[in-house]
Amino acid sequence: MMCVMTKRTPTGAAVLQPHVTQAITDAVFDELALHGYGRLSMEAVAKRAEVGKSALYRRWPSKQDMVVAALSEFSVPLAEVPDTGSLRGDLLATVTAVHDWLTHPRFATILPDLTAEAVRTPALSEAIAATIGEPRRALGAVTLRRAVDRGELPPDLDVEIALDLVAAPVYWRLSVRRAEVEPDYLERLVDHLLRALQC
Amino acid sequence: MMCVMTKRTPTGAAVLQPHVTQAITDAVFDELALHGYGRLSMEAVAKRAEVGKSALYRRWPSKQDMVVAALSEFSVPLAEVPDTGSLRGDLLATVTAVHDWLTHPRFATILPDLTAEAVRTPALSEAIAATIGEPRRALGAVTLRRAVDRGELPPDLDVEIALDLVAAPVYWRLSVRRAEVEPDYLERLVDHLLRALQC
Repeated sequence: MMCVMTKRTPTGAAVLQPHVTQAITDAVFDELALHGYGRLSMEAVAKRAEVGKSALYRRWPSKQDMVVAALSEFSVPLAEVPDTGSLRGDLLATVTAVHDWLTHPRFATILPDLTAEAVRTPALSEAIAATIGEPRRALGAVTLRRAVDRGELPPDLDVEIALDLVAAPVYWRLSVRRAEVEPDYLERLVDHLLRALQC
Repeated sequence: MMCVMTKRTPTGAAVLQPHVTQAITDAVFDELALHGYGRLSMEAVAKRAEVGKSALYRRWPSKQDMVVAALSEFSVPLAEVPDTGSLRGDLLATVTAVHDWLTHPRFATILPDLTAEAVRTPALSEAIAATIGEPRRALGAVTLRRAVDRGELPPDLDVEIALDLVAAPVYWRLSVRRAEVEPDYLERLVDHLLRALQC
């Protein structure tokens, strides 16, 4: 006796169309940039994406999950830098990538706004750390370990401090101080980082 | 013939009572922490300080001037660090002062909120830079020049990068990442800064 199973979509499982997901994600970014996280509503996102609210809830259980997923999908791949063959090259690629992330038209107003909101909302803060901060740091750690393997950094490198030192000055300068990043600023920053990380 | 001038308060000049100024400043901090800059109103501050709105306008022409003055008066003195006799001591005092500023109960929620607001309001951003950022950096530069005079730092020190490197990691960690600053974090940061600034 044979038991034949036919393959079929389980009853009730949502078929999520990628172009709809993309339209919603675009709408999330637009609403975040225009109104900020606090005033973003599922209604406004649905209206802007020209879909029903159910299309949103089918994908994410809440506004927080929706926003964090959209930002994570945008932010994490931007932290992937190629192996340039040297620590100097990799660090320059990394700080340039942080710069491009923070000045991206889609994102420039969003991170400071979200940071402010996260101060008041620990669950949001934790979600951002888990889905954006930690994956980005994991990618940064790969770059640093590559330099350890090349013998360019000591094996007992303080990865925690190193990752803060690489990302923080660009954020501080661009998003907090709102100062210019002159063309050679990132190069000079890398010179300092190379010494700080003891190579 | 003698012209005798009697000294008197010029007609119409406001006599500003310090305890009223203090009550208003306290109210500004409370309102900022509770509701953020965007929703702070002169009415709410006056009510909380138990003064008339005219008492506010007698001191500052606008909400922005009032807020920036209160924050500047609080923030700038906190960046003054004593001469500890060595660059290591001065840097540790500086990053500790940045830490204490950002974690001060009066201030912890306020700077991220103001940073987000400043992204949308260039005039606010410029006022913060002029009355908080630049005076704090000027104090930081004094500390660095002291180290140059001691021969602990090179005379061609890149002060611009140095000041970013000193302040940024603590802000990034505390206010953006909302990560722990373990007891030895600041010490380890100083170890890295000492190398970065090439001494």
